[in-house]
Amino acid sequence: MKNKQFLLAKRPVGEPTAENWDLVETDVPELGDKEILVKVNYISLDPAMRGWMNDGKSYIEPVQIGAVMRAGTVGQVIKSTDPAFEEGDYVYGGCGVQQYYAGTSQGFHKVDPRLAPLERYLGVLGMPGMTAYFGILDTGLPQPGETVVVSGAAGAVGSVVGQIAKIKGCRVVGIAGGQDKCDYLINELGFDEVVDYKNEEIHAGLKRTCPKGIDVYFDNVGGDILDAVLTRIRMKARIVVCGAISQYNNTESVKGPSNYLSLLVNRARMEGIVVFDNAANYGKAAAEMAGWIAEGKLKAKEHIVEGFENFPDTLMMLFRGENFGKLVLKAD
Amino acid sequence: MKNKQFLLAKRPVGEPTAENWDLVETDVPELGDKEILVKVNYISLDPAMRGWMNDGKSYIEPVQIGAVMRAGTVGQVIKSTDPAFEEGDYVYGGCGVQQYYAGTSQGFHKVDPRLAPLERYLGVLGMPGMTAYFGILDTGLPQPGETVVVSGAAGAVGSVVGQIAKIKGCRVVGIAGGQDKCDYLINELGFDEVVDYKNEEIHAGLKRTCPKGIDVYFDNVGGDILDAVLTRIRMKARIVVCGAISQYNNTESVKGPSNYLSLLVNRARMEGIVVFDNAANYGKAAAEMAGWIAEGKLKAKEHIVEGFENFPDTLMMLFRGENFGKLVLKAD
Repeated sequence: MKNKQFLLAKRPVGEPTAENWDLVETDVPELGDKEILVKVNYISLDPAMRGWMNDGKSYIEPVQIGAVMRAGTVGQVIKSTDPAFEEGDYVYGGCGVQQYYAGTSQGFHKVDPRLAPLERYLGVLGMPGMTAYFGILDTGLPQPGETVVVSGAAGAVGSVVGQIAKIKGCRVVGIAGGQDKCDYLINELGFDEVVDYKNEEIHAGLKRTCPKGIDVYFDNVGGDILDAVLTRIRMKARIVVCGAISQYNNTESVKGPSNYLSLLVNRARMEGIVVFDNAANYGKAAAEMAGWIAEGKLKAKEHIVEGFENFPDTLMMLFRGENFGKLVLKAD
Repeated sequence: MKNKQFLLAKRPVGEPTAENWDLVETDVPELGDKEILVKVNYISLDPAMRGWMNDGKSYIEPVQIGAVMRAGTVGQVIKSTDPAFEEGDYVYGGCGVQQYYAGTSQGFHKVDPRLAPLERYLGVLGMPGMTAYFGILDTGLPQPGETVVVSGAAGAVGSVVGQIAKIKGCRVVGIAGGQDKCDYLINELGFDEVVDYKNEEIHAGLKRTCPKGIDVYFDNVGGDILDAVLTRIRMKARIVVCGAISQYNNTESVKGPSNYLSLLVNRARMEGIVVFDNAANYGKAAAEMAGWIAEGKLKAKEHIVEGFENFPDTLMMLFRGENFGKLVLKAD
C-alpha cells in the first residue's frame, strides 16, 4: 500500500506554482499505540491554505517545509489501535493532502455518510459552514429587514452566510463572478439581489442593489470590493472580516481599505473572526443547520475535482474564482 | 460694534491655506425673537474642522462656501431675547469663527467660569473630553491590567483618553511628537510609557513599550502609526477610530491600513465613534470627570493662541503637531 503525498517544498512568493510542491510516494507507516489509519476520500481546498504556506505568526502555525500540506479531510478508518475508533468508521479530521493518514486521532470525529454525502462534511456541515454560522450570527448580528451583503457569495462560506441571513429575515445581496453563479444564488438559494463583479462595476452594482445602504457586510475577498462596500455602509454597520482572497497572493503589501474612515462617519465596526474559537459550540450549530437543511432552507453545493495529482492546479481555482460551491479534491 | 468673521471662501485641496478663507468685518446683527447675542471669548480648533471644509456626505453637513466657519466656542451673552439666557451668562455653543454670534440658542448651554477657566470648557470639559470619555470607555472597553495605546497623546482628546485608562487600572502608552510632550505625559499625566514618533521608529517604539502587545488602541492619527499598531495587537483587541489627522490633508486617497487582516488573525475589532451620539449622557460624563479633576486624577492643558486674525495659521498647528494640549484661539 503506497501513500501519495503533497509536501510543501518551498514557500511561495505570490501565486503558488508547481515548484512549491513535492509529490512523493511513501509507504503507509505502521500504527503505534492509540492511533488510527485513515484512507482519505475527500480533501478540502480552502483559501486559508495560502496563508498556512507563509512563514510567520498567524492564527495557526505555518506548515513546515518538507511537511505534508495541512488540509481538512474526510475518510474511512481502515485500521485502529485507538479504542475510540474502529475499522469502517468514517471520520472528519486533518489528514492533510495525502491518501493515507496514520497517527493520533486528536481533532478527529465521526461522520455519518447515511445522513449526508461525505464531501458535505467538508462544506456546509464542516468548517466553512461553521465559519459562516458563527461569523454571520455572532459578529454580523443581522436583524430582520436589514441589508446583508456577502462577497464570495457562491463559495463554501458565502453561500451559507447568505442563506442564514435570509433565514433571519434579512434582505440579502450576493457578490459573485459570472452569470452561472449569480443565477444559482437567485434561483436556487433565494438571494434577493446579486452583483456580478465580472460584468458590473462594483460601485454601480452596490448602488443598484443596496439603494438604502448596507447594514452587514461579510467579507471573504478584501481589496476593491471591501473599499466599495465601505462607501455604502449604514449607521452602526457591522463588517465581518472572514478573509481577503483577493490579497493572499499579493507580492506587494496588502491593499488596506482606503475608505476605512467610513467606519468613523457611520459609527461602524469591522471585526475579524476565526472559526476555531467556537469549537465548543460546533455541535449546537451543526444541529441547527441540519434542521434548516431538512426543512429545505439551507442548500449546499460541492465542486468535486478528481485526481489526487491535480492538487496544485485545483488549489489555484479558488484564487481565480473558478470553483462553484465548496471545492474538494477526490483523494484517489 | 463690528464683527470679524472667517468665511469659507473655497474648499481646500490638501492643506488649507490663506486663500481658503475670507476675513470680513460686518455689523453685529439685531436680535430677533428668542435669540442671543454672544461675545465670543475662545474658539476651539479641532482636527475635525478640516473635514467640515470638504464637500460631500459625512457625519455632519459641510460648511457652505461663503458661510462663517463652524467652530465650538465659549463666550458671554451680552444681549438676549431668549428667556433661557440672560445678559452676563457664560455659554458654550457653536458660534463659529467670529467675534460675535447672534441667533438661536439651540445647542448652547451655560458654563461656570468660577468652576474652571473658560477655555477648559472647550477641552476636557467640552467635546474633546466627551469624545475621550465615551470613546475609551464604551468602545475601547479597557480592563484593568490591559495595555492601552493612544496616539495624539498630548492632544485634547488623547491626553484625556490616557488619563481615563490609567484611572481604570490600565498600563498606558502614549504616542506623541517631541521630548516636551513626552516628558509631560510621563511626569504630569502619569502615563507608563511614551513613544516619541519624531525620534524613534514607530515599530521599534511599540515593541519596546508594548512587549506583550496592545489590547486597546485609541487612534487619532491613522496612517503609518495605525498600521504599526495593527502588527502588535493582542487577541480580541479593540481599536477605537476617533480620527486620522495624518490623512486629512491628503490630496491622494487616504492610506488604508495595510495590516487590517491582523483584525482577523487576532479576532480584533476596529470601530468608529462620533461624540454627538452620546449627547444624552454628557451630563453624567461631565460630573464624573469633574470628580476626577477635583481628586487630581485628571489634568488639563490648553494651548491658547492670541489674535483672531491668526486663525488660518493656528488651525494648521494641529496638522503639524505644533499644539501642546487643547488648541484654542482667543477671539478678541
